[in-house]
Amino acid sequence: MNKKIVSFVLLACMVICAFVTSFSGVFAQNEASAPKYIFLFVGDGMSYPQFQTASDYLGQLQESDDILSGGIPLSFMEFPIAGSATTFDSTSFAPDSASTATSFATGHKTYSGIINMDESKTIPYETIAEKLKKQLNYKVGIITSVNLNHATPAAFYAHQPSRGNYYEIGEELVASGFEFFGGGAMISPTGKEKDKKDIYEVMVEGGYKVVKTYAEANAVTAADEKVVIIGETLADSNALSYELDRAENEWSLADYVRKGIEVINNETGFFMMVEGGKIDWACHANDAGATIGDTIALDDAVKVASEFAAQHPEDTLILVTGDHETGGLSIGFAGTRYDTYLQNLASQKITYARYDVDYVEKYIENKTSFDEAMVDVAELFGLTLPANAASAAQPTLVLTNSEVADLENAFNLSINGGTGDRKSYQEYLMYGGYEPFSITINHILNNKSGLSFTSYSHTGLPVAVFAQGNGEDLFKGYYDNTDIYFKLAELTGVN
Amino acid sequence: MNKKIVSFVLLACMVICAFVTSFSGVFAQNEASAPKYIFLFVGDGMSYPQFQTASDYLGQLQESDDILSGGIPLSFMEFPIAGSATTFDSTSFAPDSASTATSFATGHKTYSGIINMDESKTIPYETIAEKLKKQLNYKVGIITSVNLNHATPAAFYAHQPSRGNYYEIGEELVASGFEFFGGGAMISPTGKEKDKKDIYEVMVEGGYKVVKTYAEANAVTAADEKVVIIGETLADSNALSYELDRAENEWSLADYVRKGIEVINNETGFFMMVEGGKIDWACHANDAGATIGDTIALDDAVKVASEFAAQHPEDTLILVTGDHETGGLSIGFAGTRYDTYLQNLASQKITYARYDVDYVEKYIENKTSFDEAMVDVAELFGLTLPANAASAAQPTLVLTNSEVADLENAFNLSINGGTGDRKSYQEYLMYGGYEPFSITINHILNNKSGLSFTSYSHTGLPVAVFAQGNGEDLFKGYYDNTDIYFKLAELTGVN
Repeated sequence: MNKKIVSFVLLACMVICAFVTSFSGVFAQNEASAPKYIFLFVGDGMSYPQFQTASDYLGQLQESDDILSGGIPLSFMEFPIAGSATTFDSTSFAPDSASTATSFATGHKTYSGIINMDESKTIPYETIAEKLKKQLNYKVGIITSVNLNHATPAAFYAHQPSRGNYYEIGEELVASGFEFFGGGAMISPTGKEKDKKDIYEVMVEGGYKVVKTYAEANAVTAADEKVVIIGETLADSNALSYELDRAENEWSLADYVRKGIEVINNETGFFMMVEGGKIDWACHANDAGATIGDTIALDDAVKVASEFAAQHPEDTLILVTGDHETGGLSIGFAGTRYDTYLQNLASQKITYARYDVDYVEKYIENKTSFDEAMVDVAELFGLTLPANAASAAQPTLVLTNSEVADLENAFNLSINGGTGDRKSYQEYLMYGGYEPFSITINHILNNKSGLSFTSYSHTGLPVAVFAQGNGEDLFKGYYDNTDIYFKLAELTGVN
Repeated sequence: MNKKIVSFVLLACMVICAFVTSFSGVFAQNEASAPKYIFLFVGDGMSYPQFQTASDYLGQLQESDDILSGGIPLSFMEFPIAGSATTFDSTSFAPDSASTATSFATGHKTYSGIINMDESKTIPYETIAEKLKKQLNYKVGIITSVNLNHATPAAFYAHQPSRGNYYEIGEELVASGFEFFGGGAMISPTGKEKDKKDIYEVMVEGGYKVVKTYAEANAVTAADEKVVIIGETLADSNALSYELDRAENEWSLADYVRKGIEVINNETGFFMMVEGGKIDWACHANDAGATIGDTIALDDAVKVASEFAAQHPEDTLILVTGDHETGGLSIGFAGTRYDTYLQNLASQKITYARYDVDYVEKYIENKTSFDEAMVDVAELFGLTLPANAASAAQPTLVLTNSEVADLENAFNLSINGGTGDRKSYQEYLMYGGYEPFSITINHILNNKSGLSFTSYSHTGLPVAVFAQGNGEDLFKGYYDNTDIYFKLAELTGVN
C-alpha cells in the first residue's frame, strides 16, 4: 500500500470512530429518554425517618446479639439512585399534600390546599399523567390507600382551587378517562349539599366499570377498559385499612398494583401512581406502629412493580418518593437518650384509629373504669401497669408512675370530657385534637421504644427520591420536588 | 483501490474503533479512580434537618412576598451527587461520634465510645488517612472547630478503647506524622492525672511547629512541614467559638482550610478532613440559631475546597457528610402547626454557651431579678414580655403567659437552685442537664420559629453524602456509613 492509502485508512478510521462514538452517545441518551412503563410511588408523609424507622424496626426484631447489626433495608432503599427533594410550597416550609403533589405532577409551586392551579386559583396546570396519556397515548393507573378523590391522587387528574371540592374532583376523575383507579371510597359522593348525582353513577355513565367487592375486583381483566375498584372493606374515613389492622381477606396495596398492571399493561406504555396515603395519617396521629406497617405495605407494593420491571428491564422506571414528612418523627427520644427499643413496637396489635372505634367508644358507652381499660392496653399495646410488671412483654414496657398518671388524665378527658379545655393550646400540644387516651398510648409506646414526634402536622424535611430503571440517573442529586415533573417530562419528551 | 484494500480499511476501522472505545472506557475509569486531592467535610450532628433548616432560614430572611420561594441552598447541597448513609453502630441506632467516625474512617462498625478498634477493644483498625499517607505518600490535614483530640478528628489518626483517652490520643496525633492540624485546644494536655509531659512539648519534640496565635498562624507556610495551629481565641470547652459568637479577628473554619491547603498541597496528593464539630454541640443544647450559624460556617469552609477544586477539576474529590443527626430537629412544631417563622431566629445574637458564661453566671453572682434578666433576653434573643409587646422585633416573638411562666420557673432553677430535683427524669426531659434558663430560652425561641427538637442526644436519621469531582458517581445511592471508607479505598486503590 502506498502512503495515500495509509492516510486514507487513518482518515476513514477517524471519521468512522467519531461517528460511532457520537452515535453511541445519541443512542444511549435515547435509550434512557423513553421509559415505556413508569411507576411513581408516593408515601404520603414519608421521608427519611419513616422508612429508616421501618428498616431499623425489622432489623431490631431479628437482633439476638449484643452487637447490633443494623436495619433491614426496604426494597426501594436498595435502588441504585437515592436523591433528595425539597418540599416547600408557596405557603410554607411545612407544606400540604395538595400543593406538593401539584409540584411533582405539574412542575409548579402553589399554595397549600390548591390542586393543580396557580396561586390566584385561575390557571389550571396539566399533569404529567394527562400529558403522557394525550401526547404518548400511555394508559394511566391511579391507586391509593386513602380515598380516590383525596389530594394526592386528585393531583394527577384534577384541577381545583380547593382540595375540599371532592365532588368536582370526582367529576374530573371521570373526565380524565384514565384506565384504572383503585383504593378507598369517594368522599362526598353526592356533593357537599348531598344533592348531586351519585358520583359512582357518573363513573358508570362515563364508561367506567365500578366494582366494590373483592369477588368482582378479582374478576376484572384487561378487557375491562376503564375500571374503578373501591375496597370492599373500608376503615376510618372510608379509606382502606391500615396495614396493621388489615384482615387477611382484604386487598393489600400490592394487590391493587397487581390488578392495575393487569388492566393498563400495553405495548405503547403506561404511567401508574401509587400512594401509601395512610403513612401520613398514622404520623399525624403520632402512631409509630401504624406508620411502620403502612411503610412496609408501600414497599410490598413497590416489589410488585419490581417484578414487572424484571420482565421489562429496558423499558421500566420506578420512582419512590414522599410528598413531605409528617409528624417530625425521630429515631431517638430525650428520655431514652442514646438507646432505642424498637422491638417494643411489636407489642402494638392495632392502630389508634381501630382502638378508638372498637374500644374507646365502648368505654364511653359502658363507663368502663381506667383499670379495666388498662387490661386492653396491656394486651393491645404491651403497656403494663407497674403492679403487673411480671407479665410485661418487655421490661421496658412497664409504665412508670408518671406515665400512669398521664394515661389516667387522658383517659378521664376521653371518657368524661375531663376538666380541661379540649380546645386549648396546651391540650392541642398534648393531644393534637385526637382522642386523648389513644394518642397518649401512642406517645408513651413511642417514647418507650426510643421514638418521638414533634408535631401533628407536616414538617419541612426534604424527601428521598429513589429511582431504578430506565432514566434513573436523572434523579440523583438534591433538587426541588418540581424537578421530579421536569425530569419525567425530559425523559418522556412530553411538553 | 481494490476490494482487498477496502476490506482492510473496514477491518482496520473496526479494530481501531473497538480499541478506542475500550481505551476511552479504561481511561474514564482510571480518571475516576484516583483523585489526588480528597476533602472530607464532616458536619458533626449534621443531617438533613440541619442543612435544610439553614437553607430555609436564609430563604426566609429574603422573603418579602406572600408567595414563599423556598430556601437558598448551601453550596454543597448543589453538588451533583447526594447519597445517603445509615449511621447505626454496634451499640445502638442512635450512635456516637467515635463509632460513626470509625465507620467511615476504617469501614468497621464498633461500639459507641471506641475509636478505631473492634468491639473487644483489642484489634486496632488502620484509617483511610493513614493508608493514603503510607501507601500513596499523600499528605494529610485534620481540621476541626472542636478540640483536636476530640472523637471525630481522633478517628483519623488514633486507635483507642475509649474516646476519653485524650492524652493517648494526643500521643497518637504526634505519632501520625500528619502534616497539618488546626482547630481547638487539646483536652487533658498533661493527662488525666496531670502528671504527663505537656502534649504540646511532645508535638514539638515530634517535629511539629506548634502555634497558638493568629500572627504566628498567618506566618505558617508550606515550608513548615508539620504544623499544629491552635485557635488563639478559645470558647466553651476550649473549642473554637460558635460562628454566631465569633469575633471578626478570630479565624473561621474556612481560614483553617485555606491555611491547611497551603501547607499540604503537593504534586503527589493530599487528604483533608474538616469537622464542623459544634453543629453537634449546638443541637445537643437544642440551640437552633447556633446550629444554623455553624452549618453555614461549614459550608463556607467547603467553598474554599471548591475554589481549590476549580483549579484542579480532574484531580479533586470533595465529600460533605455528617456522622449522625443530633437532637431530632424538625422544621415544624405542634404549636405552630403548618407555619414556620424562621426569620425569628435572626433575633438571636449569641449562643446558649456564651449566654451562660457572660450573663447567667452574673445573674447568679448579682442576684439579678427575673425582670432584669428579661431585658437581656429581649435584646439577645428577641423574646419579649407581653407588657413590652410594642417593642418586639417580630409580633410572633411576644411571649405568652404560659411561656413567661416556663421561663420564670427555669430562671428560678438556674439562679436559686429552685425547688425541683435537678437530676430527676422529668427535669432532664425539660432541660437535658443544661442551664435551665438558657435552654428554656432556646426551646421557646425554636418553637416560636416553627422548629423543635425531640432529644438532647443523637438520633438514628441517615446522613446525606454530597460528592463533587473525580469519583463522585461512586457516592450515589443509599448505603451504610462504612461504605464511605470502602468507596474511598476503591477510588484510591489503598488496601
